[in-house]
Amino acid sequence: MAGNRMDPWIDSYAARAQGLTASAIRALFAVASRPEVVSLAGGMPFVSALDSDRFAEIAARVVREQGAVALQYGSGQGDQTLREQILEISGLVGVRSHPDDVVVTAGSQMGLDLVTKIFCDPGDTVLVESPSYVGALGVFRSYQCNVVHVAMDSEGLDPQALREALVTARASDSPVKLIYTIPSFHNPAGLTQGFHRRQEILAIAQEFNVPILEDDPYGLLGFEGEPPQAIRSLDDQGVIYLGSFSKIIASGLRVGWVIAPHGVREKLVLAAEAATLCPSNFSQLTVSRYLAEQPWQQQIKVFQELYRERRDSLLQSMQALMPAGTTWTVPKGGFYSWVTLPHQLNATTMLPRAISSLVAYVPGTGFYADGQGTHNLRLSYCYPEPSRIEEGVRRLAGVIDAELDLVNTFGIKTSDEAPGNSRPQLNPNSDLF
Amino acid sequence: MAGNRMDPWIDSYAARAQGLTASAIRALFAVASRPEVVSLAGGMPFVSALDSDRFAEIAARVVREQGAVALQYGSGQGDQTLREQILEISGLVGVRSHPDDVVVTAGSQMGLDLVTKIFCDPGDTVLVESPSYVGALGVFRSYQCNVVHVAMDSEGLDPQALREALVTARASDSPVKLIYTIPSFHNPAGLTQGFHRRQEILAIAQEFNVPILEDDPYGLLGFEGEPPQAIRSLDDQGVIYLGSFSKIIASGLRVGWVIAPHGVREKLVLAAEAATLCPSNFSQLTVSRYLAEQPWQQQIKVFQELYRERRDSLLQSMQALMPAGTTWTVPKGGFYSWVTLPHQLNATTMLPRAISSLVAYVPGTGFYADGQGTHNLRLSYCYPEPSRIEEGVRRLAGVIDAELDLVNTFGIKTSDEAPGNSRPQLNPNSDLF
Repeated sequence: MAGNRMDPWIDSYAARAQGLTASAIRALFAVASRPEVVSLAGGMPFVSALDSDRFAEIAARVVREQGAVALQYGSGQGDQTLREQILEISGLVGVRSHPDDVVVTAGSQMGLDLVTKIFCDPGDTVLVESPSYVGALGVFRSYQCNVVHVAMDSEGLDPQALREALVTARASDSPVKLIYTIPSFHNPAGLTQGFHRRQEILAIAQEFNVPILEDDPYGLLGFEGEPPQAIRSLDDQGVIYLGSFSKIIASGLRVGWVIAPHGVREKLVLAAEAATLCPSNFSQLTVSRYLAEQPWQQQIKVFQELYRERRDSLLQSMQALMPAGTTWTVPKGGFYSWVTLPHQLNATTMLPRAISSLVAYVPGTGFYADGQGTHNLRLSYCYPEPSRIEEGVRRLAGVIDAELDLVNTFGIKTSDEAPGNSRPQLNPNSDLF
Repeated sequence: MAGNRMDPWIDSYAARAQGLTASAIRALFAVASRPEVVSLAGGMPFVSALDSDRFAEIAARVVREQGAVALQYGSGQGDQTLREQILEISGLVGVRSHPDDVVVTAGSQMGLDLVTKIFCDPGDTVLVESPSYVGALGVFRSYQCNVVHVAMDSEGLDPQALREALVTARASDSPVKLIYTIPSFHNPAGLTQGFHRRQEILAIAQEFNVPILEDDPYGLLGFEGEPPQAIRSLDDQGVIYLGSFSKIIASGLRVGWVIAPHGVREKLVLAAEAATLCPSNFSQLTVSRYLAEQPWQQQIKVFQELYRERRDSLLQSMQALMPAGTTWTVPKGGFYSWVTLPHQLNATTMLPRAISSLVAYVPGTGFYADGQGTHNLRLSYCYPEPSRIEEGVRRLAGVIDAELDLVNTFGIKTSDEAPGNSRPQLNPNSDLF
């Protein structure tokens, strides 16, 4: 058995390697791939909505016509033309910058990793939303950061709570290095900061002189009106902006970007070169030509429509089928709704029963560094067809009903939380129903 | 001026960010791209030797026939089929393993970064050859390692010097976490460890219980006989092996791999997921199909012939043209020869004059963490055509001649080293002429 083999190097690892533990999402990927399971777990974009013949033809022309570049090492900062095109895209969320201050990365996860690497010594504090993106928590853990969750309300990150966290941290000996936020169509909370909220958060960050790390993979995938303007559109020195082609073109290309103040950008390029030498020219040039030749804004509209329809299917199914007491957020874009279970049911202990009933989700605890989230779960509507989403919700509602029956009949509660910590993570409000 | 802008975050960076400084190779990329310069600097493989029409056609079919996978997120460890194919390739250098113990990375540089991340706390010691790969030194610096150079002789890493370094380190309070070596066709030294030498080095590593990090990007690019068998072929628990498609297919794909003992592999996958979520399926599936459908072993033979011819051109030109007292290594594979200048001329201060004379190289100091290498330079023969290599050597020989004239006429010496540190890094031996 692999798990039983002795590891001869167990005493040789760095202290940070202790933070490398498997995430709930990771274990779920295997489960979610079984066709009989309706997976509302993974955040995989529906790449089949791309015209793959057209994309194939573009990739082929890149190799045929620019092979000497596409197949070769390139600049550590990324392709110049692509960096200019990235600014066109970022302009849609109000970000103005210079191509010199854009760094192309192997997906925006790499941007997250590099920014953390250059800012955070072990023990430094990072403020994150409550809940926050599981992949970001993994990065912060891998650099031994002190992660502090800050409450959200219906508009996302709560300014009052943010200020309190900064005041508390100032009294400690752990400097706050980053405020990490996903202002638009939050993963996993499904919430979006309004414009005034963004101004408030920025003002507080400026007052305490802490940079904001703005993660914006979903910003162009809103379902109504214009895309929310990035916090970065309000301040080019105080905000480090992360963008990604994973959700607006294709995640399999692994192309994302960072837009950073000049001094940060210089360090980022050097860190990126140490990490991977340079991003893939093969991927970059394919993306660049796709943007140059294809109606990419129309393609984004196709994605918006597709995900809106699936979001509607999820919400309608939940409203029709979910047991009383279950609440959830109403996303206005992106991929996710955040569900709070009734009667403090435990989403982690419920998961094996859900999978037996052929539906998968991500338990809420994965989105916390501190054990919160036991009564929560994340539902993704991005990948399954609407009818499958409805079927998944039906199965999940059945599982929750069965759990509630147990509680009502025998008084057995699957929750294992202490009574003092029983408040749901998100307050009931106009975004919850 | 960009350089004059104040960095508002200058006091916010992590201690490790101090180690992020621009490498000589980086500045040279810009210079080397001017067509009038003969660049013997960069280690860019000659990707134009690939059949790009055929490669284009493969990339197109991957997207057309497997688009739902190629354009999507994948496993953090890498594509299963590709991992099996990687074992076929690694088998050519004697490495036997299981696909479970292979991790696909965005180039082998990423493998280097991740292994260092999981093993090295700040201040931990890494033993490296003298000189060593500039990109590895960048990684070790970025994790605040204590880098100790160990002498080489004509067969590469010197066992006696290795033992002495381990004994010295044992008496210090900095544990040795890794012995980093490039046993075949060393970058930049151009040397290769014989089989007995590999056995000796491994025995010493085992005796001191330190893992070997074996970097083998050039192992299949030998010019005579069978490929050298990897140190990893002798011990699957004590050696972490890094491989790469950059030099045997194409560097622009950014696909490399790590083969690691089971416990290390588990941590590597988690570190890889934190760093980039997963390698690019677009690149991986293209590589995989190329390996499945194309005569890749024949293609490697094409590369071997091509580089052998260029190596011969470099050596013949140097023998014919270099001023007396100049010495160099004779590579039996790979991309590089390591040159020692006569009269302790300084390769760094000579570089601007070389570039004025339209030839570029990498000064030796880039390959040391401790300021050694002033009288050395690295010449790459991988990219220019043979006639351009000859022209480059002619120009370089002229620059060295002019420097020697200055010394002989005026007694001016460009060397700025203290007398006590004036021994060349490589002893004259049968590999030098």
